Amino acid sequence: MRPTSLDGDPAGPIRVARSTHPSGTRVRVGSLEVGGPAFVVAAGPCAVENTAQTEAVAEAVAGAGASLLRGGVFKPRTSPYAFQGLGEPGLTILSRAGRRYGLPVVAEVLDPAQLETMLDRVDVLQVGARNMQNFSLLRALGKVKAPVLLKRAFSATLEEWLLAAEYLLDGGNDQVILCERGIRTFERATRNTLDLASVALAKQRTHLPILVDPSHATGMRELVIPMSLAAAVAGADGLLVEVHPQPEHALCDGRQALTPAQFGELMERLGPVLQAVGRTLQGRAREAQADRAVSP
Amino acid sequence: MRPTSLDGDPAGPIRVARSTHPSGTRVRVGSLEVGGPAFVVAAGPCAVENTAQTEAVAEAVAGAGASLLRGGVFKPRTSPYAFQGLGEPGLTILSRAGRRYGLPVVAEVLDPAQLETMLDRVDVLQVGARNMQNFSLLRALGKVKAPVLLKRAFSATLEEWLLAAEYLLDGGNDQVILCERGIRTFERATRNTLDLASVALAKQRTHLPILVDPSHATGMRELVIPMSLAAAVAGADGLLVEVHPQPEHALCDGRQALTPAQFGELMERLGPVLQAVGRTLQGRAREAQADRAVSP
Amino acid sequence: MRPTSLDGDPAGPIRVARSTHPSGTRVRVGSLEVGGPAFVVAAGPCAVENTAQTEAVAEAVAGAGASLLRGGVFKPRTSPYAFQGLGEPGLTILSRAGRRYGLPVVAEVLDPAQLETMLDRVDVLQVGARNMQNFSLLRALGKVKAPVLLKRAFSATLEEWLLAAEYLLDGGNDQVILCERGIRTFERATRNTLDLASVALAKQRTHLPILVDPSHATGMRELVIPMSLAAAVAGADGLLVEVHPQPEHALCDGRQALTPAQFGELMERLGPVLQAVGRTLQGRAREAQADRAVSP
Amino acid sequence: MRPTSLDGDPAGPIRVARSTHPSGTRVRVGSLEVGGPAFVVAAGPCAVENTAQTEAVAEAVAGAGASLLRGGVFKPRTSPYAFQGLGEPGLTILSRAGRRYGLPVVAEVLDPAQLETMLDRVDVLQVGARNMQNFSLLRALGKVKAPVLLKRAFSATLEEWLLAAEYLLDGGNDQVILCERGIRTFERATRNTLDLASVALAKQRTHLPILVDPSHATGMRELVIPMSLAAAVAGADGLLVEVHPQPEHALCDGRQALTPAQFGELMERLGPVLQAVGRTLQGRAREAQADRAVSP
Repeated sequence: MRPTSLDGDPAGPIRVARSTHPSGTRVRVGSLEVGGPAFVVAAGPCAVENTAQTEAVAEAVAGAGASLLRGGVFKPRTSPYAFQGLGEPGLTILSRAGRRYGLPVVAEVLDPAQLETMLDRVDVLQVGARNMQNFSLLRALGKVKAPVLLKRAFSATLEEWLLAAEYLLDGGNDQVILCERGIRTFERATRNTLDLASVALAKQRTHLPILVDPSHATGMRELVIPMSLAAAVAGADGLLVEVHPQPEHALCDGRQALTPAQFGELMERLGPVLQAVGRTLQGRAREAQADRAVSP
Repeated sequence: MRPTSLDGDPAGPIRVARSTHPSGTRVRVGSLEVGGPAFVVAAGPCAVENTAQTEAVAEAVAGAGASLLRGGVFKPRTSPYAFQGLGEPGLTILSRAGRRYGLPVVAEVLDPAQLETMLDRVDVLQVGARNMQNFSLLRALGKVKAPVLLKRAFSATLEEWLLAAEYLLDGGNDQVILCERGIRTFERATRNTLDLASVALAKQRTHLPILVDPSHATGMRELVIPMSLAAAVAGADGLLVEVHPQPEHALCDGRQALTPAQFGELMERLGPVLQAVGRTLQGRAREAQADRAVSP
Repeated sequence: MRPTSLDGDPAGPIRVARSTHPSGTRVRVGSLEVGGPAFVVAAGPCAVENTAQTEAVAEAVAGAGASLLRGGVFKPRTSPYAFQGLGEPGLTILSRAGRRYGLPVVAEVLDPAQLETMLDRVDVLQVGARNMQNFSLLRALGKVKAPVLLKRAFSATLEEWLLAAEYLLDGGNDQVILCERGIRTFERATRNTLDLASVALAKQRTHLPILVDPSHATGMRELVIPMSLAAAVAGADGLLVEVHPQPEHALCDGRQALTPAQFGELMERLGPVLQAVGRTLQGRAREAQADRAVSP
Repeated sequence: MRPTSLDGDPAGPIRVARSTHPSGTRVRVGSLEVGGPAFVVAAGPCAVENTAQTEAVAEAVAGAGASLLRGGVFKPRTSPYAFQGLGEPGLTILSRAGRRYGLPVVAEVLDPAQLETMLDRVDVLQVGARNMQNFSLLRALGKVKAPVLLKRAFSATLEEWLLAAEYLLDGGNDQVILCERGIRTFERATRNTLDLASVALAKQRTHLPILVDPSHATGMRELVIPMSLAAAVAGADGLLVEVHPQPEHALCDGRQALTPAQFGELMERLGPVLQAVGRTLQGRAREAQADRAVSP
């Protein structure tokens, strides 16, 4: 039976409301937990381009303490003539790289027809901003047994974003992670406008964990570190960050990708900032940092 | 072979560019033509609710001179708890009403899986604003032999909208009609902000016909007539208008639906305005008006 | 005594409300009337550059049927290093050109200190978009005996725009003309987004006349004619249009200026469109067209 | 002589460019420094309502470690019927409260005519968002010898904001502090959208110090603490925060005011977060915290 809406709006968010689960949902991904006290970092290339690039990024981000490997395989591109991703072969590359470096894998799903092949090889299914209100896809994902990362659409209100998640929970899947990736405004100096106040407000309104994607939000690598730190203290549960071994040669969005060295700097700076707000980096990252600390 | 882009951007719009078809595409729907000198009006309820309501609207809009019957059957709703449309039974109701009153039918498709059942009973397949960049759906529609009406997303730039259409043409379907339905801005007095300058500009940049949906754009029935007239002189090729026999009891968006009487007023006022810019209402509408003129 | 607000909001618009003056305010400018059945066109250069340019524009627009001459003299420029207008000498040039061709003059005021010198030589005082909520300026203009043309700010809601006008009426000046000039949105293909639905809605909510500035709204001369026609049928009471004898050499905003020939075309196309909605061009324009009609 | 623009745009920002002053400007306010390593907090009521309220806030914020007292005296209100501020008598109340508790005072100036009376009693002159492009006011402030706090307009791009500051520097006043206070977007859950990425980017592009106003940016007191912490790690040089002894009775914007207790919590949480990014609270704040630490 459907629970009653608290504010009396029969079409308002219900199952995602913080009041239904005051202590907050923790989404399990392998041995990881998203939404608990530990802050998680998913990192990787915008697009899986080939084995060498993917393995290089996976090694670098694992070494710096990332918890998850992200990578685009089926790419939703504005133009039909832009690189559309490697498709299924890319899935194999991505999942091998993840396994090799001990990182669960996040990849975007565009179509329910891709689910069968993805469920074997992907740990978290990402719904991109353009598909946030693709209700057929949401209904299909409501029935799977895998965590879903739901990005906010370019111009979705907080209410609409929560209601998109409600489709997933209403369908039976409560392993949902939200992700803010910038909204579309008049400002042209940055690619989008990162809306951290909505992240803080969403944390009050829903029990679901929330990541922030500073790469797509800003479109500029030089803003990724400050916005990552800001997300960490604003209440986000983690980050989704683009890293590429040679951003200037990336097939997609190189302008916003960190180099491995810059990603290392991000991870080092995150630690003390998280500590200042009573959180920690997820265990693997702490170990990576400890390893570095003892190496000569 | 893919034609070369005129402005040199290899990912820019090519097949939709006005330069590839300077005289403009005319999309055939039954005996109708969208994009020719005659202005077409598609009208009908936001949602098909039942046979009586749908037949009443079809009769009224046919009598007033509409060229097409629009109606929502699979409804993309922000909340999973809002009325989701009648689904397949609604298709039967809609297509019967269309046939009875001689109106080809427009209905929204949410998922490639719906295509088989829709292609029999629907004349124009609508892609809603939320699915404008659902590239799986666009690729599927690129392969069908039916006209597609592609709505602009809430926050799509003109370039993105044209590139979404490019997916359809690149897939092999050049029977594409664009539809502006308002963009999302800070203004709250209207539901969205109708962007007529983009319609005028799109007419210069692409050869595809363009309709305007003043109902969703404004969300207020008292603005539908002035915005329809404005669309007609700004260069639009037609309208998509919501009409309901009893808007105050509509299951969806009643606030923006015209009554049949108001729709009749719209059609009467359109005639002279179109004539002033050298266009005419599509033939059926002219006949309907002639009929009324001779009746006692 | 202050009248009571109709909707009970003590800070809502009161004196500008349509209900306080259902038949609509007509603002007198010389022998002209703005807000009556006749549609008025104010035209002229973005900036007064010199006598020759200003006289050439004045002659051309008067000949084509404009009712008012607009021209910037004190220019509010984003950069301190951009051309700031001729200042007071420009006023003399503008007012002489207006007198010579029988056109009342509209110019922007930036500062109450400019009022003394402007009141002698300017017929309508324009408040630019950037100053819509410069309440010191509004209070000063509330006390003068000249008509004020109040442009909507880049991101003002309809409510805020009406309340800015309320400052003028509350100060004692009810000779107020509103002017929509485009709002700021994510869309980059046009300079701003012309919000004609707000014009139609404003006509329902307030008794004040409203002009539309298609030049600033779109920033592209090729959109000025379609948007002017659209404004005319959406309920606007007139236009504010930029015209320059050689747009490619304009010191300011040349990209959006019409040539005199294009302005002539606009005026010719306006006539039948206005007639189709039961309005006429203001008398002077009709005479200009009649003159042309009888000339060999 | 005017320096040459680095990127070749003769109307681009020059004097505010980081390259002209790579180490960053430090604005002196009494014994304080804004833009140095120490983070400053300006706090106080939206509007000065009376002596008791103002003194109570001043005492509370001084005790919690604020560096400056802010308070509105001339209020720019959307409606002419809303509380317009106490005007000059309010200045006396505010400046006495500041002196009594050792806090320099920030207040908004609306009009050059107010400068004479304000310069005696106000330490930092604030230009509000609505006046960011009131160039007459900016020119007048370019000539005074007092620091100016320049708020970003609702819909100003970063470029426009920097160019507004350029007016001040070009006029001769280089004691300029920028302040981000939220931009206007489609999102309605918060009052405005706090644009922290623009703060981080502005720190790279200009040498001027930047504050963040989380109160106006969000409009909700429950978001002020997370957004303040986020601003601190994103690179802001300080905060402008609204505090009221009894927010529910405030004459203006009570919904976004912190209580004195909440402000104390903010200050306590800021310390460790600033330390994590290598900054400190301005000296006075550190002393206040030390005082509390030793009290029984």
